[in-house]
Amino acid sequence: MKATIVTIGDEILIGQIVDTNSNFIAKSLDKIGVEINEMISISDDKQHILNTFAQLQNKVELVIITGGLGPTKDDITKHTFCEYFEDTLVRNIEVENHIIELFSSVFNVAPSQINKDQSLVPSRSTVLMNQNGTAPGMWMQKENTVFISLPGVPYEMKDIVSNVIIPKIIKEYERPYILHKTILTYGQGESIVAERIEAWEDALPKFIKLAYLPSPGRVRLRLSARGTDKELLENEIQERVHSLTKIIGDIIVGFDDDETIEVVLGRLLVQQKRTIATAESCTGGKIAQMISSVAGASKYFKGSIVSYATETKINLLHIPESLIIEHSVVSAAVAKQMAINVKDLMKTDYAIATTGNAGPSKGDSSAEIGTVFIAIASPKGIFVEEFNFGQPRDKVIDRTVNKSFELLQKEILQNLL
Amino acid sequence: MKATIVTIGDEILIGQIVDTNSNFIAKSLDKIGVEINEMISISDDKQHILNTFAQLQNKVELVIITGGLGPTKDDITKHTFCEYFEDTLVRNIEVENHIIELFSSVFNVAPSQINKDQSLVPSRSTVLMNQNGTAPGMWMQKENTVFISLPGVPYEMKDIVSNVIIPKIIKEYERPYILHKTILTYGQGESIVAERIEAWEDALPKFIKLAYLPSPGRVRLRLSARGTDKELLENEIQERVHSLTKIIGDIIVGFDDDETIEVVLGRLLVQQKRTIATAESCTGGKIAQMISSVAGASKYFKGSIVSYATETKINLLHIPESLIIEHSVVSAAVAKQMAINVKDLMKTDYAIATTGNAGPSKGDSSAEIGTVFIAIASPKGIFVEEFNFGQPRDKVIDRTVNKSFELLQKEILQNLL
Repeated sequence: MKATIVTIGDEILIGQIVDTNSNFIAKSLDKIGVEINEMISISDDKQHILNTFAQLQNKVELVIITGGLGPTKDDITKHTFCEYFEDTLVRNIEVENHIIELFSSVFNVAPSQINKDQSLVPSRSTVLMNQNGTAPGMWMQKENTVFISLPGVPYEMKDIVSNVIIPKIIKEYERPYILHKTILTYGQGESIVAERIEAWEDALPKFIKLAYLPSPGRVRLRLSARGTDKELLENEIQERVHSLTKIIGDIIVGFDDDETIEVVLGRLLVQQKRTIATAESCTGGKIAQMISSVAGASKYFKGSIVSYATETKINLLHIPESLIIEHSVVSAAVAKQMAINVKDLMKTDYAIATTGNAGPSKGDSSAEIGTVFIAIASPKGIFVEEFNFGQPRDKVIDRTVNKSFELLQKEILQNLL
Repeated sequence: MKATIVTIGDEILIGQIVDTNSNFIAKSLDKIGVEINEMISISDDKQHILNTFAQLQNKVELVIITGGLGPTKDDITKHTFCEYFEDTLVRNIEVENHIIELFSSVFNVAPSQINKDQSLVPSRSTVLMNQNGTAPGMWMQKENTVFISLPGVPYEMKDIVSNVIIPKIIKEYERPYILHKTILTYGQGESIVAERIEAWEDALPKFIKLAYLPSPGRVRLRLSARGTDKELLENEIQERVHSLTKIIGDIIVGFDDDETIEVVLGRLLVQQKRTIATAESCTGGKIAQMISSVAGASKYFKGSIVSYATETKINLLHIPESLIIEHSVVSAAVAKQMAINVKDLMKTDYAIATTGNAGPSKGDSSAEIGTVFIAIASPKGIFVEEFNFGQPRDKVIDRTVNKSFELLQKEILQNLL
């Protein structure tokens, strides 16, 4: 089964917002073996929408459309959808009752006429109830292609995809198996990794594809297998990963199957019954924010002192002023002391500390722009590393966060030995 | 001038990563009057790439392609690009020297052959130098369409777009003016806003388009005007905004022209010579991280205490244990005390404090899931508001962050009066 995802909205084409809906839909469909062959973003223009529908007709089995279902005049998807199917709009009572209910329970008022008109749907469409909003999803078929129109509000769209569309596709369509396995490597560049595994890569069977996903400081290798025999695919992938580990085991730090590093770290900390805190300067709270974004983080995350100003380092983290004067605020000595002190203050097993100069101009330190010190405190001691992440500012912050998680993960794994 | 942005990469189609490159390119082109008519993401498949190029040929004047230029076997864009133009690859000496220089200065080693081969480019292409990586951009024309191939690594792509492509387009092509003006409103839903401004909206001239951009807690109204007479467009937009302010001035909180709320707040704080700190529980450091993501934030941001665990609130924020026992950790009283204490501890003018239950399960508090208290301390006093942001977890966190910034902005603006 092949699918195309279509996003409708001028706000995406002028760069006002990033389309994250397509990513969610792609991930959800990929998991159940539906192949996404394209994602397209188009404007809120009737003719453009109609042309896109006609182009996709019979080219793919499934077209999922988001956006343009709001109650205001710039939202034209529903009328265009109706026109494409040569259908007429009729009131759906179940949806209307849901809208009245939603307004009464959430806003404590009756919906206005334009809100109630959200219950108008093409007469031949299958309505996909939207529990979190007024615009329902609509499922319609023309020849060999199913078109599904969904609201663009992420929380509404996600609920309909996960709880209505995916179960319906699983029930009604046969699909092949798609397996992905991602291997995380740290510390060597894409080209070096490629040279080391060249013979292994050349020996991969046709139905397994390898992709290199480089990002600052690390390369992820993704194996994708597609076929009808699930057991065969699983065995083959497992075997290939095993032989890969023999070649580059020194740089493999983990396997992520759709897992972020903060989720992996969280599980490690829960397993080991360990706790963590952070003391952040240049990262400004981003490490804390990522740790705490994981549901259940309160089991291991005690908190953070974001000591952005030098005086905050002195007054709240109790870094001796003399240490700062002697070494400067961006230094190995200060990073170390930050980690030790936050670990003591919050009574945790682990602590991460960062201090650096993210740029674009120099702050309270004369350190070169891009210079960062990361300290990791653990039950076994403390270490600090120096980096220069160059520019721009957001790259320095992101690389510092990634590197911190990498160093912490290695430290936790070593403490297991 | 019309453009299409094409992203090449299976990692986008299977949902492994979100495409943010298209957004950056769209924003950059929109600013200089280039109209983006579509964004397309396609797979690393030769035939798919060739078909897409052929479809866009002579349909738009400009096609910008990112991705697939790495040195590894899964990167096929360059060879496919060359095939489409019936050209051959030749070594570019300037690029090769740059690669050797880059390896010697950054990695302190000589590049391997596959790295040096990144200097192979189609013989008729105009090379766009990549200061931050090994893969150059390539500019080629066929009939009425210019095709530009760029590396997919965001920092590399951004530098080439901003410093090479945009200046080249400005110099070589005539473009119309595109003006956008965004009006930020808070506190009323999309449909209510639409009803209030219906007559005003109907009276807009044809060359001005209105879009509603709703997000949790706020609606942005975007006016877009396109034409050749810049002054006329500016006057017309200004007049329409003026008349809009007369109708819904009570809910307009600002005008953002490509500015995020944290940038607007930063400028306000610098102008007023005021400082800020945060004490965060359920937001886990996200408010601090957003404040500090702005270059120059060290002028006004002192830091944050992320008191995720109850004991951190007691030990580091000095919240009396009795207060927590009496009111519970998720309460107006605790939020207030958090804001007062962090303001005192960090000696700032303003402070934001958050405490809530982001879910999915209950933590140290019996408060309903989704309940959040936000306290704002200012030179004039302290106030706290209670919200229920429902579920899921990421929505609760995002809405808390947005609401905090909104409350702070209103408070700062009121203190100006």
